[in-house]
Amino acid sequence: MTATTLDAALDLIAEIPDFPEPGVLFRDLTPLFGDAEAFAAVIEALGAAVGYDVDRLVAVEARGFVLAAALGYARRLGVALVRKPGKLPNVAGRVDYALEYGQATLELPVGSVHEGQRVAIVDDVLATGGTVAATAELVRSAGAVVTGVAVVLELADLGARERLPGLPVHALRTV
Amino acid sequence: MTATTLDAALDLIAEIPDFPEPGVLFRDLTPLFGDAEAFAAVIEALGAAVGYDVDRLVAVEARGFVLAAALGYARRLGVALVRKPGKLPNVAGRVDYALEYGQATLELPVGSVHEGQRVAIVDDVLATGGTVAATAELVRSAGAVVTGVAVVLELADLGARERLPGLPVHALRTV
Repeated sequence: MTATTLDAALDLIAEIPDFPEPGVLFRDLTPLFGDAEAFAAVIEALGAAVGYDVDRLVAVEARGFVLAAALGYARRLGVALVRKPGKLPNVAGRVDYALEYGQATLELPVGSVHEGQRVAIVDDVLATGGTVAATAELVRSAGAVVTGVAVVLELADLGARERLPGLPVHALRTV
Repeated sequence: MTATTLDAALDLIAEIPDFPEPGVLFRDLTPLFGDAEAFAAVIEALGAAVGYDVDRLVAVEARGFVLAAALGYARRLGVALVRKPGKLPNVAGRVDYALEYGQATLELPVGSVHEGQRVAIVDDVLATGGTVAATAELVRSAGAVVTGVAVVLELADLGARERLPGLPVHALRTV
């Protein structure tokens, strides 16, 4: 464990009312990413949440990249980067889905996830679960197994777990 | 040093002709991010490039996040995430600039870089240098010092170094 406890690290997450639109309480991880010891504490806790029976991490653009990349480095796991449309030259799979606010499309790069691999999804905030469900669909369509989801923050009221049947969800903090 | 040499790691970068538009040779780091040992070799080399007289890393959305986050974890440095418009609730600075293909705007989050800090810029590919120059401008406008730029790949023909006067540029590979 680092000098910063996990609770203190998670307390750095700021709450911004009415962003990106009225009625939405945005969770801003900027202060957490800016604090090296807090960030390390979170990465280590995410590593414990992901477990050891995992071959690969997958993350969604863009904040998910920050967490998955550091965890991939820490645990020597390759990282597959799911992206928004138009960014990838070679697309293995594409999915459209509903967000907490709006609509989105995600794409999985060719060769980033292989058949039979055990893949954990890493993200910052679990809200409605739409992004994670879409990511799980992409990973499964590549023939891999989704072992679970590890997130920093889960917004319990938004019902993500109902959208993720059979998928273990590990949140470092639930609000 | 890991089992994978840096050269072998860099050889994983794929070249995709005519993406995102005709005449552009896209450098795809997907295979590098997907190979844990290669990724670690690159992160360690970037750490050497950044040096030790640095307080903080700054990266640009989205591939830069992958490298800076892993390096921040490895070296216990906080990371400031420069973002595309509309993503940040509290913006410390904004800059418009020209890309290799098109125009773009970048925003620095409030509180992510502090006056007097020594900040290294980390990115995947140095092309025209427009993104790095814009990022340096944002960091300096927050009162911090840009110590240098560390990138995986530099495209030498595009003249980035002329756009970055006085800024040490360290590229793991120049093509």
